[in-house]
Amino acid sequence: MDYRIIQSPSDGALDIITRRMGMSQSATQEFRQYDAIGLIQGKLIDMVYVADLAEKAAGIIAVDIRGSCPQNMILLALFGDTSSVETAISDIKQKMKKSRGSD
Amino acid sequence: MDYRIIQSPSDGALDIITRRMGMSQSATQEFRQYDAIGLIQGKLIDMVYVADLAEKAAGIIAVDIRGSCPQNMILLALFGDTSSVETAISDIKQKMKKSRGSD
Amino acid sequence: MDYRIIQSPSDGALDIITRRMGMSQSATQEFRQYDAIGLIQGKLIDMVYVADLAEKAAGIIAVDIRGSCPQNMILLALFGDTSSVETAISDIKQKMKKSRGSD
Amino acid sequence: MDYRIIQSPSDGALDIITRRMGMSQSATQEFRQYDAIGLIQGKLIDMVYVADLAEKAAGIIAVDIRGSCPQNMILLALFGDTSSVETAISDIKQKMKKSRGSD
Amino acid sequence: MDYRIIQSPSDGALDIITRRMGMSQSATQEFRQYDAIGLIQGKLIDMVYVADLAEKAAGIIAVDIRGSCPQNMILLALFGDTSSVETAISDIKQKMKKSRGSD
Amino acid sequence: MDYRIIQSPSDGALDIITRRMGMSQSATQEFRQYDAIGLIQGKLIDMVYVADLAEKAAGIIAVDIRGSCPQNMILLALFGDTSSVETAISDIKQKMKKSRGSD
Repeated sequence: MDYRIIQSPSDGALDIITRRMGMSQSATQEFRQYDAIGLIQGKLIDMVYVADLAEKAAGIIAVDIRGSCPQNMILLALFGDTSSVETAISDIKQKMKKSRGSD
Repeated sequence: MDYRIIQSPSDGALDIITRRMGMSQSATQEFRQYDAIGLIQGKLIDMVYVADLAEKAAGIIAVDIRGSCPQNMILLALFGDTSSVETAISDIKQKMKKSRGSD
Repeated sequence: MDYRIIQSPSDGALDIITRRMGMSQSATQEFRQYDAIGLIQGKLIDMVYVADLAEKAAGIIAVDIRGSCPQNMILLALFGDTSSVETAISDIKQKMKKSRGSD
Repeated sequence: MDYRIIQSPSDGALDIITRRMGMSQSATQEFRQYDAIGLIQGKLIDMVYVADLAEKAAGIIAVDIRGSCPQNMILLALFGDTSSVETAISDIKQKMKKSRGSD
Repeated sequence: MDYRIIQSPSDGALDIITRRMGMSQSATQEFRQYDAIGLIQGKLIDMVYVADLAEKAAGIIAVDIRGSCPQNMILLALFGDTSSVETAISDIKQKMKKSRGSD
Repeated sequence: MDYRIIQSPSDGALDIITRRMGMSQSATQEFRQYDAIGLIQGKLIDMVYVADLAEKAAGIIAVDIRGSCPQNMILLALFGDTSSVETAISDIKQKMKKSRGSD
């Protein structure tokens, strides 16, 4: 699983993300106003689980970044203010280490 | 094969799942009311087999989560109340260990 | 190569299969009435060969389960009564062991 | 590289092939009347090279079997009478062993 | 992660890039006038991070080169004058070595 | 990286190439009249770089062969007379050995 936190994201970075949200361009506008974006990339099954963890733990909106042609691996974007995103990412790291969930 | 159980799933987690169901958005509404979601990710051939096992063993609806562009690996969601989902996942783990079905 | 036999398949399992047949939904109806489904997953080249073997050996209809976006690996479904499907799968296993067909 | 020869192909095998030809269904009709089909699966670059070899060496039509969403690996079908197909496949095996063409 | 810098790019090279920008052909015209193109290929999560780095460090526009069917790996093009592109690529190399961001 | 040179290409080989050019069928006609085709298969980032090298070094047109659904690896076709194509391929081999461009 890969993690990145981007603070005050640039236009180019936001374009790459919002073009893959599977929403109309106007619907993606609200996501351009958050302070920070946490990015997590992993298996689809884990990303669903992580989205649930993130939204329950902090003031965060989780969106998957892949549009209409999903693959095995997807990218999850966590939008929020900087400290919420940092807390969420660090919580997720801890919880995912405890529960592997594979056979 | 990977397994996860999500209880009282958040909106973000449900969005990721329902957007990949290959149904109209209204048809996915009923799936937002279940207590728990069991997630299983594996090879297409095994997921068909597992969907059959799950639906025969417990009060569960099995849906594949991939939309219109299926790949080699797919994600299966088992919707039901918490105990049915837990029983189904644990039954499936046992049965899949016994029957490998590959050459 | 992976093999599975499903007897009296559940609705969820049949949905996963028929939604990937690349036919109209009404055209898939007839396939819901067979006793058993044999599933075989492998390389496209082998699945064409296996479909030919299956249809020549027993009272079986072979359909590939991938819809409009085929990949390297495809899933073949053999529809028929239980004994025909079992015979077909066992014949195919034997014949594929004898003839590797790769360089 | 994988090879298979199918003689007097069954309807199911022909359906899998012709549905991936990227032609209208009527345009695929003529390909259902050949005695034999040679199948070769490999890298796109090699399959273009092999198609050229096959058509220059024998009374054979070479078609690629992937439809509109090509991947790295494609399947090439050589249509002709049984002996032409057998000769072409055996010629190709020899020539491909001599010239690797990779760095 | 792979890097390349192309100076005064040829028409063929520009065609390959602009056809994968997911923009109308006229919208891609302005990108044909830069002195140099920096290319970086890597995981989607890293390319979002790198696009942000590049746009904050130098007079550079970052665009992802994949069109409408994104995969796991994407190609990022950095447009600018030669020295800006060279500086950006060398900055990115350094920063990506320091922060791995995976678990 | 894989290389092939095809002289006086057959119709089947030309069909496989031109159907993946992402142009109208009429626009591909002019490419059927060259003496030789050089084929190079590799990573997208390298193929953009190679297309630039080829077009600057010799009387050659470089086209990428993948149509509308590009993947990680693409195939580049170099159209020209036989000696131009041979020179271009041999130049590219040399230059690509010197500059790896990965980290």
